Amino acid sequence: MSMKNQGIVVRNIERADRSVVEGLAQCGVATVHEAQGRTGLLASYLRPIYAGASVGASAVTISVPPGDNWMIHVAVEQVKAGDILVLAPTSFSDAGYFGDLLATSVRARGGVGMVIDAGVRDIRTLTQMQMPVWSRAVCAQGTVKETLGSVNIPIVCAGALVNPGDVIVADDDGVCVVRRQEAAEVLQKARTRIAGEEAKRARLAAGELGLDIYDMRKKLAEKGLRYV
Amino acid sequence: MSMKNQGIVVRNIERADRSVVEGLAQCGVATVHEAQGRTGLLASYLRPIYAGASVGASAVTISVPPGDNWMIHVAVEQVKAGDILVLAPTSFSDAGYFGDLLATSVRARGGVGMVIDAGVRDIRTLTQMQMPVWSRAVCAQGTVKETLGSVNIPIVCAGALVNPGDVIVADDDGVCVVRRQEAAEVLQKARTRIAGEEAKRARLAAGELGLDIYDMRKKLAEKGLRYV
Amino acid sequence: MSMKNQGIVVRNIERADRSVVEGLAQCGVATVHEAQGRTGLLASYLRPIYAGASVGASAVTISVPPGDNWMIHVAVEQVKAGDILVLAPTSFSDAGYFGDLLATSVRARGGVGMVIDAGVRDIRTLTQMQMPVWSRAVCAQGTVKETLGSVNIPIVCAGALVNPGDVIVADDDGVCVVRRQEAAEVLQKARTRIAGEEAKRARLAAGELGLDIYDMRKKLAEKGLRYV
Amino acid sequence: MSMKNQGIVVRNIERADRSVVEGLAQCGVATVHEAQGRTGLLASYLRPIYAGASVGASAVTISVPPGDNWMIHVAVEQVKAGDILVLAPTSFSDAGYFGDLLATSVRARGGVGMVIDAGVRDIRTLTQMQMPVWSRAVCAQGTVKETLGSVNIPIVCAGALVNPGDVIVADDDGVCVVRRQEAAEVLQKARTRIAGEEAKRARLAAGELGLDIYDMRKKLAEKGLRYV
Amino acid sequence: MSMKNQGIVVRNIERADRSVVEGLAQCGVATVHEAQGRTGLLASYLRPIYAGASVGASAVTISVPPGDNWMIHVAVEQVKAGDILVLAPTSFSDAGYFGDLLATSVRARGGVGMVIDAGVRDIRTLTQMQMPVWSRAVCAQGTVKETLGSVNIPIVCAGALVNPGDVIVADDDGVCVVRRQEAAEVLQKARTRIAGEEAKRARLAAGELGLDIYDMRKKLAEKGLRYV
Amino acid sequence: MSMKNQGIVVRNIERADRSVVEGLAQCGVATVHEAQGRTGLLASYLRPIYAGASVGASAVTISVPPGDNWMIHVAVEQVKAGDILVLAPTSFSDAGYFGDLLATSVRARGGVGMVIDAGVRDIRTLTQMQMPVWSRAVCAQGTVKETLGSVNIPIVCAGALVNPGDVIVADDDGVCVVRRQEAAEVLQKARTRIAGEEAKRARLAAGELGLDIYDMRKKLAEKGLRYV
Repeated sequence: MSMKNQGIVVRNIERADRSVVEGLAQCGVATVHEAQGRTGLLASYLRPIYAGASVGASAVTISVPPGDNWMIHVAVEQVKAGDILVLAPTSFSDAGYFGDLLATSVRARGGVGMVIDAGVRDIRTLTQMQMPVWSRAVCAQGTVKETLGSVNIPIVCAGALVNPGDVIVADDDGVCVVRRQEAAEVLQKARTRIAGEEAKRARLAAGELGLDIYDMRKKLAEKGLRYV
Repeated sequence: MSMKNQGIVVRNIERADRSVVEGLAQCGVATVHEAQGRTGLLASYLRPIYAGASVGASAVTISVPPGDNWMIHVAVEQVKAGDILVLAPTSFSDAGYFGDLLATSVRARGGVGMVIDAGVRDIRTLTQMQMPVWSRAVCAQGTVKETLGSVNIPIVCAGALVNPGDVIVADDDGVCVVRRQEAAEVLQKARTRIAGEEAKRARLAAGELGLDIYDMRKKLAEKGLRYV
Repeated sequence: MSMKNQGIVVRNIERADRSVVEGLAQCGVATVHEAQGRTGLLASYLRPIYAGASVGASAVTISVPPGDNWMIHVAVEQVKAGDILVLAPTSFSDAGYFGDLLATSVRARGGVGMVIDAGVRDIRTLTQMQMPVWSRAVCAQGTVKETLGSVNIPIVCAGALVNPGDVIVADDDGVCVVRRQEAAEVLQKARTRIAGEEAKRARLAAGELGLDIYDMRKKLAEKGLRYV
Repeated sequence: MSMKNQGIVVRNIERADRSVVEGLAQCGVATVHEAQGRTGLLASYLRPIYAGASVGASAVTISVPPGDNWMIHVAVEQVKAGDILVLAPTSFSDAGYFGDLLATSVRARGGVGMVIDAGVRDIRTLTQMQMPVWSRAVCAQGTVKETLGSVNIPIVCAGALVNPGDVIVADDDGVCVVRRQEAAEVLQKARTRIAGEEAKRARLAAGELGLDIYDMRKKLAEKGLRYV
Repeated sequence: MSMKNQGIVVRNIERADRSVVEGLAQCGVATVHEAQGRTGLLASYLRPIYAGASVGASAVTISVPPGDNWMIHVAVEQVKAGDILVLAPTSFSDAGYFGDLLATSVRARGGVGMVIDAGVRDIRTLTQMQMPVWSRAVCAQGTVKETLGSVNIPIVCAGALVNPGDVIVADDDGVCVVRRQEAAEVLQKARTRIAGEEAKRARLAAGELGLDIYDMRKKLAEKGLRYV
Repeated sequence: MSMKNQGIVVRNIERADRSVVEGLAQCGVATVHEAQGRTGLLASYLRPIYAGASVGASAVTISVPPGDNWMIHVAVEQVKAGDILVLAPTSFSDAGYFGDLLATSVRARGGVGMVIDAGVRDIRTLTQMQMPVWSRAVCAQGTVKETLGSVNIPIVCAGALVNPGDVIVADDDGVCVVRRQEAAEVLQKARTRIAGEEAKRARLAAGELGLDIYDMRKKLAEKGLRYV
C-alpha cells in the first residue's frame, strides 16, 4: 500500500472462486469473523440501509476525496458479476456519494451492493431495487466531480484494510473482509464452526448450560469465582 | 434573526402555494436539495422514526429551552392544514419533547409531522398513527413547562436556517428546507432534473456507463488518471 | 454498591410480583418513567434490534470486563422465568457479547430478553426467535473468556443504577428501571396517569387545545409571552 | 439567506463601531451571551487552539465545500483591520482548511483570528504568532481548490446564524455572535450585568450564600424542597 | 437509591477521615483505581479545565434537571471544608451550570472543586483562582432556576455511582470515586501498590524488561506466542 | 496483511535511515502529509498529551485485544533507539494501556514515544518525563494480561495502515505515517515544499494576496465567481 498511487485505476484484479464467496455469504459475518481468529470486521458504525440483506462478493475498492464521487463512475466500469463496491474517502465525509442512478449502473454490470465509509441517498429506491448498501450515514448531500482518486488499490475502510479482490461478507450484523488468498481456508473453518454450533444449539435449547457444555466450572473456581 | 425576540409568537405567517409544496414532496429530498445548488439540507443525524414517510409542508418553527416543551402547546394553536412543526432547543437536548398526545393535537389541526433537533417518544403509537417525525433521538425523557421560548421566528435546526413558512421536504433520505419565496423556482428546477434523470436511468440500466453518458473520459485523462 | 465485590455471583435475589411486572410492561416506558417522577431511564443510545418488542422483566445483572463475555454463561444459570439479563462492561466496549446461542440458552431458562451497554450479534436470528435485545451497538466482534466479573450485584448500565431484581420495562422508546420495592406503587401511579391521558386524548383529537385543557394561557401571559 | 447565492463575494459590508466591538470583547463570551437573553452561542465543540486568547471582531463569513479551501483566499482580500474569518463547510468536514501561510496573510490585512467549523493545522506556528483559532478539530488533512463557495453571505456556523459584519466575541469559554445592529445595546446590558456581579462576588467571597443574596429560600419551599 | 427522592436535601452526611482523603489524593487516580480492583472510574470524557490539578475530597452530590442550576445554590450551603461538588443532570446537558461566582461561593465555604457531567464556564477565571473542575464540556450556555433537584442523594455521574460522602480523587488522568466506608482499606492497598512500583520503576529504568520482572515468558509461550 | 498472524512477534524489522527520519520530523506533519499527496494521516482524534512535542521515529507495531496490554511488554523488547510504539486494539477500547512504568521501560530501550488508538494514563508523569504520547483518550482504566496479540505486523491504527518500520512523524497537528521505502523520496519533496513556502510566506506577510501569488483570479472568474 504505497502512498504514491493516487490517480490510478487497476483493471485486472484477481477474485476468489465464486463458490467460495457464496459459501462464505451463507456462513454469515459473525461466523466468518470468528473463523479467521476474530479479525476482519469493519467498524460497527457501518449499518445496512434495510434489514435482511446478506451478500458475499469480491471487492472493487475506491479511494475518493471528501465530497467528490467522480471515481465511482470510473469504478463501475471495473465491476464484474458478483462484485461489490467498497469506498473510503481520504478524510471524513458523510456526503451522499451513492444513489439510485449509480446503483442502476452497478446492477447493470452485475454488481451486488456497496460498502461505503460515508453517506448514501435515495434509500427508498435502493430498498425497492433490493440493492443493499452498508454505510456510515444516510445523507442526501450532493458531491462534486473535480478531483481524482484511485480504483482497485488497497484502502482502509471503516478501520479495516481491504485489498481489491478480497471477499466481502455483509449482513445485518455488519461487514467482514476475508483475504482472497485465505478465503477457501476460512470457509472450511467457518463450516466446521457451524457444524459444532448446531449440536450445541440443540443442547442449549434443551436446557443444558454453557457452564457444563463448555466445562467452565473448574476454571471459574480456580480464578476465584464465589457464589453467595 | 434578531437575538431579542424570546417569548414571542408570530401568528400570521405566509406559506407557499399548496400545489408547490406538494410538488416538492413528490420530487424528494435528494432532488430538491440538488435543484437548489446542493443547499438546504438539515444534518443527517435527523432520522425518521419509521421508513417510508414522505412529506412536503410549511414550517411552523419553535425555539425551546433544553428539556422544556411548553412552547409546543403554544405552537399547535398556530398550526394550519399542511403545516409541520420544526423545533430546535437553544442548547443540546435529547429529551422526549413530543409524543402521542401532542401528535393527536397536531393532527386535529391538520398538521402533518414534526422535525425536531431533540428527542421524541411514544414512537410505536406515532407509527400506528402514521404521524412521521424526523428526530435526533428516540428518548422517553419527560420535559418541564417552565420557561418561554418563541414560535414562528427564524431558527437554526440541525445546522440549517429555517424561517416560518419555509417549505420542508422530508423522506427516508432526511430533511431539506426550501425558502418560501424560492419554492416555485426550485420546484421547476427539480422537475427538470427528474426529467433528465429518467433518460439517464434507462441508458444506465441498459449497461451504458456514466463515463460515456457524462463524457468524463477526456477530463479524467487530462487530470492524469492512469490505467494500469 | 461496594467496590470490592468482583468475582461474585449472588444466587438468591428477590423479584417483584409477576402481575406488577406485567402491569408495568403494559404501561410502557414513557408512562412508567413519568409515573416515578421522570427518573429511571437508561441512556437513549440503547436501541432495540427490531421494532415492536415490549417487555417487563426482573433484572439479572452482569458486570463484565471489556471484550469478555464469560460471565454471561454464569448468569444464565441464575435466570428464572420472566427474567431479563442486564449487562454493563467495566469500561467501554461495543463488542458482540451476545448472540443466538446464548439467546437459545436464555430462552430455555425462561428468560425474555437482554439489555446490554455493549454490542450484540446474530441479530437476524434473534429477530426470527423474537428474542428482544436493547443494545448500544450491533457488532459481530467476538469476545474472550478469561477474566471474572460478577452476577447479581448492583451495576450502572447506560447511566442508570440497576439492582438485581429491579423491574426492567423496555419498548420502542427505550429502557426504564423501576426499583423492586417501589414497583407496585409506580404501577398504580402509571395506571392513574394512563386513565387521565385517555380523556385528554379524546379532547385533543376533537380539536381542543392543550393551552386550554391544561389552562396554560394565564401563566404564559404572566411569564411575558407576546403575540405579534 | 437565499439558497441561490453560491459563488458570490459581497465586498462592502457594514461593521459595528470599533469601540463597541472592543467593549464586548472585554465583557467576555459568558457575559455577552447572558446579556442578549442567553442566545448567540456557537456549539461548544469549537475550542481554541491555545488557552488565554480573547477577541472581539467583525465577521467576514465564508461558505465552503467540504475539503475545499479556495474561498479563504478570496475572503482574505475582503479582510479589514479588526475582522475575523468565520468559516462553515456546506457539509461536515474536519479537514485542515487553515494554516500558518493563510494566517500570515490574514494578519497582514489586520485580521485578528479565525472561527472554523472544521479543522486547522500548523497550530504550533499559529500559537507562536498568537493568531487565535477556534475550531472543531486540529487536523493536518490538506484541501483542494476546485469548487466555488461564497464570501460575506449569511452562514450557519456551529449551529448559529452569522451574518457578515456581526460581532464575534471569543475566549476560553467558546464563541458568541452578536448582531451588528444590536451590538451597542448588548454592550450596555453586558456592562450592567458585570457591575451587578462585582457586588455579588464580594458578598459570596465573604461567605454569604446565593440562597440569601438571590432570595431563593421561599420559592424553593413553595416548590416543595424538603430538608432531611 | 430510591426513585422517589426528588426535591430532597440531605443535610448531615458522613465523610471519610481527612487524613485518609488526603492520602488517597497523593496516590493519584490511576493507583487508587487499581487498588480497588480496577473499579470506580468516572467516564474518561470528564476532563480537567487546566492541567496539574490534583484533589482528594468528600462528595456533596447534586442531581439537577437539564439546563437548570438552581440546586447548586442549595448545595453550596451544605459544603464543608474539604468537600467537592459532584453534579449530574437527569438527562444529557452540556450547558454551563457552574462559573466563577458559584466558585467564589464554594471556596468561601472551604470547597475544593467540582466534578460535573455537563458544562462549565468562566474557565479563565476559574484557572486563575486555581479552582479545579472536571467537566464533560466547556460551554457558556446559561441555565435557568425553575425546577427542583436533590442534594446529597446517591447519583450516577459519568457512568459511576457516587454516594454523598464518598471520596473523590481527581487529577490529570480523570476522576475516581472511593466508597467512604472502604477508603481506609483502599488507601492501604494503594500505598502497598506504590511501594511495589518504586522498585519496579528502578529496575525498568535500568533496562530490565517487564517480560522478566513479571516472569511472563513462560505463560506467553504456553499461550502459543511465536517469535519469527 | 494476513488475517492469520495472531500471536506472532516479528523480531527483525527494517528501519529507515536515521537521518531521513530526523529530516521528516523537522518538516512536520502537515508538510510531510502534503509531500506524499495528502496521504498518510492518522485520524484527528489522536491528540498529544502535552503541547510542543515533535518526533520522527520508526514504528514498532502492536495489535492488542480490547482492554489487554500484555503485548506491550512483549513489544518493548523489540524497541531500538529511535523507535516509537504504535498500538491498535482489535476492537474499540479507551482503556489506559500505557503509563509511566511502561514509559520508563520504553525510554530505557531508547524508544521516543507512543501512538495509541486507545487510552493512556499517568499523563502528569509522562509529561514530566517528556515522553510524548498521541492517544484517543486519557483514561486511567486498567487492563488485563490474558490474551495474545501480535508485534510488528501491519496494523490499522486510527484509520491508517502502519507497517513495522514505517516512519512516524507526530507533532501538535497529529500523526502521519510514511512508508519506509518511500521515506527518502518524501523527505526530498517535503524539503522542496518548505523552500517554496518560505518565499510565499514573505510575500504574504508583506501584504500580497494568495489570489495573486497563486494566480487564481482568472480561474475563479471562469468558474463563475461574482463580486457584488
